[in-house]
Amino acid sequence: MSSSRQRVPLAETESPYFVGVDVGGTNIKIGVVDDQARPVAYDSLPTEIEKGPEDATGRIAKVIDSLLDEAGVDPAKVDGVGLGTPGIQDVPTGMLVRPHNLKGWDDFPIRDRLAEHTHWPVTFANDANAAAFGEYWAGSGRGRNSMLLLTLGTGIGGGIIIEDRTIDGEHSLGGECGHIVIDISDRARDCPCGGVGHLEAYASATALVKFAQEAIAAGRSTSLKARTAAGESMTPLLIAEEANQGDVLARELIFDTTRYLGVGIASFVHVIDPDAIVLGGAMTFGRNSTALGREFLQHVREETVKQVLHVLADKLTIDYAILGSDAGFIGAAGLARVASRERRANGC
Amino acid sequence: MSSSRQRVPLAETESPYFVGVDVGGTNIKIGVVDDQARPVAYDSLPTEIEKGPEDATGRIAKVIDSLLDEAGVDPAKVDGVGLGTPGIQDVPTGMLVRPHNLKGWDDFPIRDRLAEHTHWPVTFANDANAAAFGEYWAGSGRGRNSMLLLTLGTGIGGGIIIEDRTIDGEHSLGGECGHIVIDISDRARDCPCGGVGHLEAYASATALVKFAQEAIAAGRSTSLKARTAAGESMTPLLIAEEANQGDVLARELIFDTTRYLGVGIASFVHVIDPDAIVLGGAMTFGRNSTALGREFLQHVREETVKQVLHVLADKLTIDYAILGSDAGFIGAAGLARVASRERRANGC
Repeated sequence: MSSSRQRVPLAETESPYFVGVDVGGTNIKIGVVDDQARPVAYDSLPTEIEKGPEDATGRIAKVIDSLLDEAGVDPAKVDGVGLGTPGIQDVPTGMLVRPHNLKGWDDFPIRDRLAEHTHWPVTFANDANAAAFGEYWAGSGRGRNSMLLLTLGTGIGGGIIIEDRTIDGEHSLGGECGHIVIDISDRARDCPCGGVGHLEAYASATALVKFAQEAIAAGRSTSLKARTAAGESMTPLLIAEEANQGDVLARELIFDTTRYLGVGIASFVHVIDPDAIVLGGAMTFGRNSTALGREFLQHVREETVKQVLHVLADKLTIDYAILGSDAGFIGAAGLARVASRERRANGC
Repeated sequence: MSSSRQRVPLAETESPYFVGVDVGGTNIKIGVVDDQARPVAYDSLPTEIEKGPEDATGRIAKVIDSLLDEAGVDPAKVDGVGLGTPGIQDVPTGMLVRPHNLKGWDDFPIRDRLAEHTHWPVTFANDANAAAFGEYWAGSGRGRNSMLLLTLGTGIGGGIIIEDRTIDGEHSLGGECGHIVIDISDRARDCPCGGVGHLEAYASATALVKFAQEAIAAGRSTSLKARTAAGESMTPLLIAEEANQGDVLARELIFDTTRYLGVGIASFVHVIDPDAIVLGGAMTFGRNSTALGREFLQHVREETVKQVLHVLADKLTIDYAILGSDAGFIGAAGLARVASRERRANGC
């Protein structure tokens, strides 16, 4: 598996390339990215969890070689690999600890194994932090000093970047932003994590679907009822469709979400005061390409302003993510680039 | 005012000293601190706000000279000054913008004026962040990789340190931890800042006093009633005294506070995952020197564990601050030390 080739160090004058790898529960995305954050080659391979992490690591290395060949990039011009994986992980030691979406990959030294397979230094990150770095380097947060990415999907993920660094946290759990507490009342909602009153229980896709089901059970009149009675699944997309058709409840549920997000974002702002807040994931309703998406963002901004310190009210930047599912591998490559620059600054 | 003397650069081999300055609304604390965080000379002077910031800056410079003389420290062995001031400020430019407790000191370039008066490079910080750095360098957070200091007083202040750096935030408002939202219910309490449901409205000294007054107004039986009827002011100290005498309401109010703090700390943990959380300020009830203080801390820990992700439950470190009001100037000196090391690493 491991070849015996040696990587030749890059000369100072050459413009380097970086490889980004984003390991998910279904697919592994791999891209070769240039020094200006442009992907020059890209591939996606099935994770095939059941074959285990050693097999996957070997396949990743082979795909990297193919991509470089395809793009006509001399491997000597590649100055590092970035790797993002789901938690629970241990970033400093490069270990998968108990990754939620990668059953059986526990306690695997994925960073060092990938380094052995590829012969490049590998920079390791949480996948949400890698995606945040992608938006920070090349997406909606480009040119900002610091950024928070909130990914609004089945759950709520977060990634924080401050001046080129991911906030990994002491236990590699920095940016678990879905689990801040926003409701201490008796009616606080249960979070899938076991906690109570967490943001994720109010503003994720899962929460929106539950709110809709509860409203129907409580006898609210809504066109959602006919569609789900006809066998369709309750999803954020279905709720958005009915909101667009003028269903009052569907609109109400979607815009209630913006109130919870505003509260959560205000809290994040008061802790880390980032230069930009970026929203991604399915719960963004088509983003700026739809009227509903644009209206949703406007409401999030207004709800956040209601809760932040007055001095910050006109200083907030809240926008949608723009890189989609490419953010992970681009960000991983970007983190490899930061590590490369640090090695060079230290004369390595 | 500014003298014409030149500061002689320190030789690599010499063990340097640093000066820390902590500007408050009543007093300015100044200390000379050695490379191991030990204060070797200390003084406090009245702020005399009405004389303005230029006058204060000149007086600070004179006190620094006296302190060095008193301690027998050669000024050539001092490698920088650290300065902490209350917000609103602009850390990158070293400006006081509209400091809450320093009326009339708006828009003053305090960092650069102090540098001109002292001829040393001045490192500027928010006072809460400087205090956090003090506990991180020399106090309860010593040896930790990252730390959050929560100061529980009239309000709730915060300071975040990650690997030798203060999290200043893009608008110099990082660590405004009292203003995270913990209650979105209809009964959420008003925060002095104008927001609703903020932690400060539940777990500050001001909040505790309000809760006590409301309980008495609602007809709750308590020994607090007789004491305030006799003309004493309702304060955390008074409530603590009655709690120690076995008053049921007083104990209930104090331990309710730990529930709110647990919720808040869990949120901070899920955003930045710090290596240690340190609690300071008046709302710590004598800290580890009293039974009530020890019980309070134990409750805070238990309430936090209830709300954090399970994987973190046995990994949290929550302790009391130990430097008291010295944390500010020691931390400011520590930040000057970090800046000094960076200058040397960069060959300056």
